[in-house]
Amino acid sequence: LDYQHVQVPFEITLWIMLASLAKIGFHLYNRLPSVVPESCLLIFVGLIMGGIIYGLNDRSPPVMDSDIFFLYLLPPIVLDAGYFMPSRPFFENIGTILLYAVVGTVWNVFGIGFSLYGICQVRAFHLQDVSLLHNLLFGSLIAAVDPVAVLAVFEEIHVNEKLHILVFGESLLNDAVTVVLYKLFRSFCEMPTIKSVDVFAGVGKFFVVGLGGVLVGLSFGFTAAFTTRFTKDIRVIEPLFVFLYSYLSYLTAEMFHLSGIVAIIACAMGMKRYVEANISLKSHTTVKYFMKMWSSVSDTLIFIFLGVSTIGENHEWNWPYICFTLIFCLVWRALGVLVLTFFVNRFHVNTITSKDQFIIAYGGLRGAICFSLVFLLPDFHRKKLFIAATTVVILFTVFVQGMTIRPLVDLLAVKRKRESAPTVGEQIHIRFLDHLLAGIEDISGHWGQYYWKDKLEYFNSKYLQKILLREYDQPKSSIVLLYEKLERKHAIELAQAGQLGHGPAHPSLLNNDRTVITDQKLEDTQNPDVLDNMQEILARNLYRIRRTGPAYNRHTLPGESEPAEHAKELLILRHKGL
Amino acid sequence: LDYQHVQVPFEITLWIMLASLAKIGFHLYNRLPSVVPESCLLIFVGLIMGGIIYGLNDRSPPVMDSDIFFLYLLPPIVLDAGYFMPSRPFFENIGTILLYAVVGTVWNVFGIGFSLYGICQVRAFHLQDVSLLHNLLFGSLIAAVDPVAVLAVFEEIHVNEKLHILVFGESLLNDAVTVVLYKLFRSFCEMPTIKSVDVFAGVGKFFVVGLGGVLVGLSFGFTAAFTTRFTKDIRVIEPLFVFLYSYLSYLTAEMFHLSGIVAIIACAMGMKRYVEANISLKSHTTVKYFMKMWSSVSDTLIFIFLGVSTIGENHEWNWPYICFTLIFCLVWRALGVLVLTFFVNRFHVNTITSKDQFIIAYGGLRGAICFSLVFLLPDFHRKKLFIAATTVVILFTVFVQGMTIRPLVDLLAVKRKRESAPTVGEQIHIRFLDHLLAGIEDISGHWGQYYWKDKLEYFNSKYLQKILLREYDQPKSSIVLLYEKLERKHAIELAQAGQLGHGPAHPSLLNNDRTVITDQKLEDTQNPDVLDNMQEILARNLYRIRRTGPAYNRHTLPGESEPAEHAKELLILRHKGL
Repeated sequence: LDYQHVQVPFEITLWIMLASLAKIGFHLYNRLPSVVPESCLLIFVGLIMGGIIYGLNDRSPPVMDSDIFFLYLLPPIVLDAGYFMPSRPFFENIGTILLYAVVGTVWNVFGIGFSLYGICQVRAFHLQDVSLLHNLLFGSLIAAVDPVAVLAVFEEIHVNEKLHILVFGESLLNDAVTVVLYKLFRSFCEMPTIKSVDVFAGVGKFFVVGLGGVLVGLSFGFTAAFTTRFTKDIRVIEPLFVFLYSYLSYLTAEMFHLSGIVAIIACAMGMKRYVEANISLKSHTTVKYFMKMWSSVSDTLIFIFLGVSTIGENHEWNWPYICFTLIFCLVWRALGVLVLTFFVNRFHVNTITSKDQFIIAYGGLRGAICFSLVFLLPDFHRKKLFIAATTVVILFTVFVQGMTIRPLVDLLAVKRKRESAPTVGEQIHIRFLDHLLAGIEDISGHWGQYYWKDKLEYFNSKYLQKILLREYDQPKSSIVLLYEKLERKHAIELAQAGQLGHGPAHPSLLNNDRTVITDQKLEDTQNPDVLDNMQEILARNLYRIRRTGPAYNRHTLPGESEPAEHAKELLILRHKGL
Repeated sequence: LDYQHVQVPFEITLWIMLASLAKIGFHLYNRLPSVVPESCLLIFVGLIMGGIIYGLNDRSPPVMDSDIFFLYLLPPIVLDAGYFMPSRPFFENIGTILLYAVVGTVWNVFGIGFSLYGICQVRAFHLQDVSLLHNLLFGSLIAAVDPVAVLAVFEEIHVNEKLHILVFGESLLNDAVTVVLYKLFRSFCEMPTIKSVDVFAGVGKFFVVGLGGVLVGLSFGFTAAFTTRFTKDIRVIEPLFVFLYSYLSYLTAEMFHLSGIVAIIACAMGMKRYVEANISLKSHTTVKYFMKMWSSVSDTLIFIFLGVSTIGENHEWNWPYICFTLIFCLVWRALGVLVLTFFVNRFHVNTITSKDQFIIAYGGLRGAICFSLVFLLPDFHRKKLFIAATTVVILFTVFVQGMTIRPLVDLLAVKRKRESAPTVGEQIHIRFLDHLLAGIEDISGHWGQYYWKDKLEYFNSKYLQKILLREYDQPKSSIVLLYEKLERKHAIELAQAGQLGHGPAHPSLLNNDRTVITDQKLEDTQNPDVLDNMQEILARNLYRIRRTGPAYNRHTLPGESEPAEHAKELLILRHKGL
């Protein structure tokens, strides 16, 4: 036995296998997924596994490595999120999302940090050694809403698109703020004195980190699109480029201390349109399927690891600090959403209702990102307290909020997502209105979103498409593409139901036996001449069946309503009888 | 800049990217692939890269790590090979393949080993310090035909199926022999004395390694098939199991010192049939596509690394040893094929022609497996000589034989692969003949392949399918499945050509306007009643278009031959005109 040799890949494969089997087991009982979110159950599986490992080894089970999390587990989920991001609602609400992500996160960080510092001043709690900077550092990692946790819960409750994109978009874009604040406070902790110039540098850094991420992502995205122009002869590696370039964008951004999450999202959203037009249908299926598969496995692994890592001796328990952390997380988020939404609603016709506000505040789940960040903290004497507090906040938000949000959505009758896809008619009207609004904005001199969208679209069709698309000569409108897709789907359904009506492959064949069968009556077929004629036609027809299967031409409608069909069948039987 | 942090995934991604881009570049010029095999060009790219690295660093470029090769690069290729292995020719020729793989490889190992030992005795060559055991060890690693190299070349020259499976099957199954002999001689080298019991243990070990590999593979394969029974509610992770279980089978076999290649092939061939029946169509596309993609990338990386690793200071040059190695490799293989084929032809009706024998002998390419094994050798003073000889043999076989085999196949007019897929009729006849032959064998008491195949099929349908298939109640014959597949393909083609004739979704609709249009003449449509009727039908029809696109019911045949179609179009135009 040589376990050492294969240990690394073997254990990785086993973990993935465990995660996949847990997923299957979870879905075997149909009632379970409708009550408990998958994330809760996976954490529960992780807790059990962690308990077993702890019991057997008598020491803490291996903690999820922050490097593994950030380098291997997080990118697939974010890529999936970015690639399947509904771009229209995202860009329609980009202002609100950015407001929540930037101002909201800063608000939460400082709110939680300062109020926890206040708690630390209470002599009875024995927490006076936790400095303001450490509290702010803790605030910066606990404040950010987690995209993985949000996605896991919100995918199951099907709230309306706008609400979904507000919470989800916030959870993705706050990464830039979290990265900056976390690194800023961590370096402040290690600095002897903090000058005001450092603070301003931090503010400036946010723009660098966020916009730099977008730039890195877009450049890799466009390179990916450009590369897929040349894969016509080697279709089989097309899906690879989607994954390689987006992963490279993430790694490059991380390398330059930019926001990797923002970069990969920009890359995915930037390349999607062009890549989809360039690559083959099967490549596209593979890309979509593999992305979903990969993100689903990553997601499962993250929650299981979260459970496993919770067990152990990493925790220092302090009731007041932990309870107040939880309370402040909830209170400051609720306040932040209320205040920000008040301003947002003043500038928008399509306001965010108070029900929606409640769900936005309540949907602020924390997850594995906080958990990884708290383990990345430099060693200091209260680190275990921070770990305990983070674990409690994560478990509380995932279990209590995650499990109650669905009943609450039902109870409040929050507007749900419409089930059906928009019809072709609707799409045409939406597009028409877009052009109309762009025109109105142009005339009125208001540079609103429609104006920019129109300009972008013009730039796209004038320059980008020519560079990035393989077959620019015949650009197809998205409605034509949709129609083709639906048509193809329908064709497959028809073929599966055995109802495919084939067009005539051989016109003479059609004319021949159509006239023979329909014009002359069944009785006439006893005539030997007609029979010979018929035999020849059938022979040719049957030959075609044998040669190429699907080119079989039944040039009449299926079903009992067609007498000619009957006649032909009878004829074949009779001719065999002769 | 924090390169350290992302180095590992970044460099892996960059290597894969380089490999993919090299592949694209190679296919950009259409004439290149028809002259030079891809493997040669990739080695060439690797040589250039290695030269650049050597020039910049002034030391040998990193050598391909044997662990990386055996644990990560080889499995995808073997999995792809096993999964897409044409099982019928493989099992029809299993005896011949095994003879070549086992006896042929042993023949080559001892032939090359002993004759090189003879060369070493020539005083003028200064090679007297290379012992017999070291020569045999070298023989064991240089004798085995490499599946990766064979696949790369034979996929491009399209020889007939039997010839292909003979060379390719041999290259896969000789792994068991190579593993045993290589490990045996390596341990002999380190042993002070060799007893005869060790030699017998070695012979026994071969059966353990080979059959153990098959057993491990089949058990993982059936577990995979069993697992996919339960993935109905969670289609998205179905493809994962195919990869996970086959990789696990490989790793498990390696862990127990069994043949990993044999295991993964047994796993892939064992599960294929059941997994394909269980998983969804899209999952299946993803599995196939991803497997091809992965193996293609692995393949590319292997050849590039081979080129990179060739450059450097690892070589000790000795003209006689290297030249005689090359000559003995060619001669012993040719002799082995001649002798073995002589015996094979005596027992088979369907003989192997002398042209085929030449191609089999000539197609014995060496590749990355030898290369990795030679680097895994324990350190001794002539290791660099062995590395040099191995490199020369690999480069000679891949470049000279790989590039000349296509012209030779043309020159000899070796029977090519038939281009068209077997027709349904042929398939029915083949199946019929199988049953007939199984019956004849049963009656005559001869336990031949048809007898065993029939028994296996019986066991499969009686027991295995019930356990491993999800929907056993409606077992579909492979011909029905083929028909459905072809039908589906045809439907997609029709939909893409815009010629899809739809069946009537609404019977009343059909009866209505069919009677209206065909029974009454065009002149009658001026009648306002008929027009109203028509308007209603069209409105309903158009409504259907808008609602669901593809459910649009043109319940008549497409094309100009149908007067009713004309009539309808005219009517719409006229009605608009009114």
